[in-house]
Amino acid sequence: MIAFERTVLFEEVDSAHIVFFARFFGYAHDAMERFFGALEGGYPRLVGERRVGMPAVHVESDFHVPLRYGDAIRIETSVARLGRRSAVLRYRMFRRRDGALSAEVRHTVVCSDLTLLASMDMPVDVRALFEAHVEPAPAAPAAAT
Amino acid sequence: MIAFERTVLFEEVDSAHIVFFARFFGYAHDAMERFFGALEGGYPRLVGERRVGMPAVHVESDFHVPLRYGDAIRIETSVARLGRRSAVLRYRMFRRRDGALSAEVRHTVVCSDLTLLASMDMPVDVRALFEAHVEPAPAAPAAAT
Amino acid sequence: MIAFERTVLFEEVDSAHIVFFARFFGYAHDAMERFFGALEGGYPRLVGERRVGMPAVHVESDFHVPLRYGDAIRIETSVARLGRRSAVLRYRMFRRRDGALSAEVRHTVVCSDLTLLASMDMPVDVRALFEAHVEPAPAAPAAAT
Amino acid sequence: MIAFERTVLFEEVDSAHIVFFARFFGYAHDAMERFFGALEGGYPRLVGERRVGMPAVHVESDFHVPLRYGDAIRIETSVARLGRRSAVLRYRMFRRRDGALSAEVRHTVVCSDLTLLASMDMPVDVRALFEAHVEPAPAAPAAAT
Repeated sequence: MIAFERTVLFEEVDSAHIVFFARFFGYAHDAMERFFGALEGGYPRLVGERRVGMPAVHVESDFHVPLRYGDAIRIETSVARLGRRSAVLRYRMFRRRDGALSAEVRHTVVCSDLTLLASMDMPVDVRALFEAHVEPAPAAPAAAT
Repeated sequence: MIAFERTVLFEEVDSAHIVFFARFFGYAHDAMERFFGALEGGYPRLVGERRVGMPAVHVESDFHVPLRYGDAIRIETSVARLGRRSAVLRYRMFRRRDGALSAEVRHTVVCSDLTLLASMDMPVDVRALFEAHVEPAPAAPAAAT
Repeated sequence: MIAFERTVLFEEVDSAHIVFFARFFGYAHDAMERFFGALEGGYPRLVGERRVGMPAVHVESDFHVPLRYGDAIRIETSVARLGRRSAVLRYRMFRRRDGALSAEVRHTVVCSDLTLLASMDMPVDVRALFEAHVEPAPAAPAAAT
Repeated sequence: MIAFERTVLFEEVDSAHIVFFARFFGYAHDAMERFFGALEGGYPRLVGERRVGMPAVHVESDFHVPLRYGDAIRIETSVARLGRRSAVLRYRMFRRRDGALSAEVRHTVVCSDLTLLASMDMPVDVRALFEAHVEPAPAAPAAAT
């Protein structure tokens, strides 16, 4: 699991004065990009030079507690399931103030050749990165499939 | 079912040159806002004057075919499940060029008093709107939850 | 001058409950894309096939009247200044309810070869499009640059 | 002057594969929010509790060098002009790789009572914050007016 923190920005709320639900998926992608920071050159080099990316084929999210402007968030990223070509990344987003779980996103990505937009086996370094962050054995049965 | 069309904007793609996955949830919310257009004053009046909204508690999405800049999209909105306080809205997003289903979003919303951020029974007119668009009986078994 | 209308979406406001100022530039670009709709294939074909685009080198905007969720907007696009390689597009954004000018954006774009990211003379059809929408002679002295 | 760094995210580029021009205004607002971080509770408390904000009345920006996905940016924020109720914030955005100035945004804000949406004199602590970051005397003549 890796974690990072950010703060809800002024523009990220909606007309109900809470973080717009689609923003959580942007937060999740930001978390994935940071997750790939462990690779040389990160996700930008993977995508830009090696033309390998991880587009989503399925996404699920539960929203528990709304976030407001200025709330500090802690986002924890782990690998809920790992296959040869695909994986389920889990992002748990906590409100720092009280530790409440605000949202959980499960993001099924497929390793893809971005030139062909076709699936491919994960490169060795990508797979090793995912393996290093697979959730411990009694993983939540709620893991996306 | 109600439908509308839009076109992928210049800024809506990502570094893989396809519509960024989180954008589909913005499209979905836009579709919901248009869905509520059948109510007097639409979603703006519901939210702004009556202080009633439909925040998401769960979202699921399948991504089938990527969209590119300039692609025309047809979005069909229907009600996959209807409860007293909650509903599952289904958005099916088709690429106009070939009719391919690009993405399907299932959006579980809970009718809420936005002042208290607490759930409430749907007002009569909201419920009638949802009822009018419930999917025909042999609804896809893939319906959310 | 060409015009189109849109409505402020639920996610486009900020923590002050008015349209976030940067959103007006997204509206402006949307207006430019529609402006190019008069060309065969529109801006998508210009950018995607011909690899010609109009990146901004300078932008100025005045904000007069705030917009709120649900406000209908009328956006009028005209050409405030036209050169061989560059032009100033002017977008005037009116609140439909009372006709008030909400924002004016002046957008200096340079016709560019997107492969080289280098300026180039406008293609004949692009220039003709711009010429057709140059503002009448006693153009506002407030025109950019 | 205060500075911070960020990286261009996957979703922030457009169909020309460079940072979408409107994104720079989002970066600028993020920089302003960080600028206010020196106040107790930051901009969130100013806006949320004291109902004081700094909406834009005028914005100007020059774009010099495009940014691409993954580029590290350094954003320097200073006060180019300071009045009793208004100020011009200047954001200079540098590409870390080579130090090139990518964009400069000049953001004229008016201290406002957000309940009335009416201008007001800056509170003492806000004014002190701005004063502490006024640019040294021979300020660029290009400063927005």
